[in-house]
Amino acid sequence: MSQAAGAHTRLDVMNFLNEISARFPAAISFASGRPAQQFIHLQQWMGAGARFVDYFADEKRMPEEQAYHLLGQYGNTNGIINGLIARQVRHDHGIACLAGEVLVTAGGQEAIDLCVRQLCSEPGDVLLARTPTYIGATGVADLHGIEIAGFRCDDEADMADALAAAVARLEQHGKRPRALYLVPDFDNPSASVLSYATRMQLIAYCAAQGIVVLEDNPYGMFRYEGETIPPMYALDSHGCVVFLGTYSKTICPALRVGFAIVPERMLQGQVCGKQVMAQLSQAKSFSTLNTSQVSQAIVGGILLDQQCSLRASIEPAVAYYRGNRDTMLACLDSAFKEWPQQITWNVPQGGFFLVLKLPFDFGAEEADICARQFGVIVMPLSFFALAPGHERHVRLAFSNVGEEAIAEGVKRFAAFVRQRLQGQ
Amino acid sequence: MSQAAGAHTRLDVMNFLNEISARFPAAISFASGRPAQQFIHLQQWMGAGARFVDYFADEKRMPEEQAYHLLGQYGNTNGIINGLIARQVRHDHGIACLAGEVLVTAGGQEAIDLCVRQLCSEPGDVLLARTPTYIGATGVADLHGIEIAGFRCDDEADMADALAAAVARLEQHGKRPRALYLVPDFDNPSASVLSYATRMQLIAYCAAQGIVVLEDNPYGMFRYEGETIPPMYALDSHGCVVFLGTYSKTICPALRVGFAIVPERMLQGQVCGKQVMAQLSQAKSFSTLNTSQVSQAIVGGILLDQQCSLRASIEPAVAYYRGNRDTMLACLDSAFKEWPQQITWNVPQGGFFLVLKLPFDFGAEEADICARQFGVIVMPLSFFALAPGHERHVRLAFSNVGEEAIAEGVKRFAAFVRQRLQGQ
Repeated sequence: MSQAAGAHTRLDVMNFLNEISARFPAAISFASGRPAQQFIHLQQWMGAGARFVDYFADEKRMPEEQAYHLLGQYGNTNGIINGLIARQVRHDHGIACLAGEVLVTAGGQEAIDLCVRQLCSEPGDVLLARTPTYIGATGVADLHGIEIAGFRCDDEADMADALAAAVARLEQHGKRPRALYLVPDFDNPSASVLSYATRMQLIAYCAAQGIVVLEDNPYGMFRYEGETIPPMYALDSHGCVVFLGTYSKTICPALRVGFAIVPERMLQGQVCGKQVMAQLSQAKSFSTLNTSQVSQAIVGGILLDQQCSLRASIEPAVAYYRGNRDTMLACLDSAFKEWPQQITWNVPQGGFFLVLKLPFDFGAEEADICARQFGVIVMPLSFFALAPGHERHVRLAFSNVGEEAIAEGVKRFAAFVRQRLQGQ
Repeated sequence: MSQAAGAHTRLDVMNFLNEISARFPAAISFASGRPAQQFIHLQQWMGAGARFVDYFADEKRMPEEQAYHLLGQYGNTNGIINGLIARQVRHDHGIACLAGEVLVTAGGQEAIDLCVRQLCSEPGDVLLARTPTYIGATGVADLHGIEIAGFRCDDEADMADALAAAVARLEQHGKRPRALYLVPDFDNPSASVLSYATRMQLIAYCAAQGIVVLEDNPYGMFRYEGETIPPMYALDSHGCVVFLGTYSKTICPALRVGFAIVPERMLQGQVCGKQVMAQLSQAKSFSTLNTSQVSQAIVGGILLDQQCSLRASIEPAVAYYRGNRDTMLACLDSAFKEWPQQITWNVPQGGFFLVLKLPFDFGAEEADICARQFGVIVMPLSFFALAPGHERHVRLAFSNVGEEAIAEGVKRFAAFVRQRLQGQ
């Protein structure tokens, strides 16, 4: 329990996550970072494809019927809504990119999968990641036998130094660190945000070392307060950042549409981004061939309806998640006021999660007891760990639970904690 | 040119296929086995999802609104229309399977990808395939560094012997043949059909050797004459066949919905099919997470509308493809009547392709000349080859060209052949 999860354990976490809610359907779940379902207008959105078909027919100068025929067929491996995505990331993230730099993928997970495999394709290539980190990235590496070097940094200001130390260790052993996986905005699972200064330091260091930053940004648009910091892709003038995006949180997960933005001039021109894109495209052609054009048409139609910015359409969801966060913080304050020094948590400025620290270890066994005996599901942070050091932390997701359920769930979790502390 | 395509060349073929039509838009293309677009009713089908939502809400005993919410979310990795697919393959292919034996995939290509990687996951594991074969299967192996052992058999009756010889050679070198990729019905690219006797011999041999047959069946429902032979999955009592299916030809490619059927009791119980399924599911969870539930709802809705059999709905398409095949055969008869001995072709009983043999080599260079100078695109069979021996063959697809274009395209191809023969 005090050891970091190994490759095998990490692979099983995805199943644990998927299954624990089904195993305990009556429990209140703080386990999964799903978007809240009241903002998913699937029935309405299934009609949005028609809007894109009009646009597509116009663009290709063909009758609508022919556009439907073309959309129904096999399609371009890299996608058909690349230009609309390029406009959306310009409006919503301040990212300047060409349509040709966008690869449309079957969800954000496929973008991670393709990029990690492509960048770490030779023996000795290593994926760098801060510990703890998102299991969807480390799982790809584990599944394909790619070495992961996790580095710890408790103070975000030390991150570039911690990274440099990890790289030095790898190079001593003849390994080649090729990519750094990061969620700079409202990280999953830590909920942290990288400062402007840290972003700039990491970019400078990675550019100098020839390391590609895989900047995963599922939560960036869900900021509840404070100043937005530009994505690393927008701050990078060296071509060392690949931006990974998804419409699973801003629209809905069921469409399975995500993307990667690969700069044409990579690593100051040392690497041909077009060549990297061609290799990603080739790998995609042997896994999913192309992303569903029906899903792409729906996302495209929504983007057209929203003038290629999703800021306004997600406003009600942002307000709801902010309220949920506030409720959870207030409930935690009230539930744990007896132990102000021993039980602490962070106050995330955005995203779907917060992290709480307990005065005792909390692993799979404790998660199971919480679910089974106390009717509340929480995630041990050690499930996401690449090295020891997070045994006493839990991740609480507040995105897809109502206010009442949050209050009741925190009460149940506090009951477990009380029993454990009083039993000591 | 007289050598079999190597791994690198094979990987490039997919690009060649995707790009040659775009490079020569005025050329008549016999290159790609796309379904004919007049049978793709995308606009109408995009409404079929609602039918599935009703069914899904009924099944889960929830209001329709909640069903839409659930469908809009992340979903079961293995899919949500597995029961409907199990019914469809029972009706249309005589396959008996449980819903739990069905894995829904992001197109048939993902099913191939997951199965090849899973079955050949250890060093020394080898994928067996008859040469020539579909590039989507060998491409997966090439991309992941999995060895492919191609075996040739000109007479289909010798296939089990040719396979046994290939297996013996591998075992002499300490290799483990783990899977045999096959398209038993209207093979791509050869258009051949395996006889009942050959199917039974292969099943007996593979069951005895512990080799899993990956039976890919995109074209099985497109038979134009003659008796249907049951799929190998339906003939197999040993659990040595995994059935791979797709809705790209029977509905349309844009939905990207395919599936694998993995028997629970594999290889006479030596292998736990549930365990294999769990591993496929885990690999899928790190590549596409789950197949788009919007696409699944549309396929599900169409299956419900058709009482889980697509035989009736594809009848017009079958009649059209049969007509196209007849037109192509008549045009070839007429165009090549001067050289009855030197130029020959097969008469496929179904599927989307036929194969023609020339009295001279036909490779990438010749394909380029045909497209550029003669305005017709055909595929060298050597592109699909795993060993020398198909340098003089070409594959002609007749599925997505009208009768007039077939006549004109064959005329253009004959003009190239005439020039080449008279220039000799």
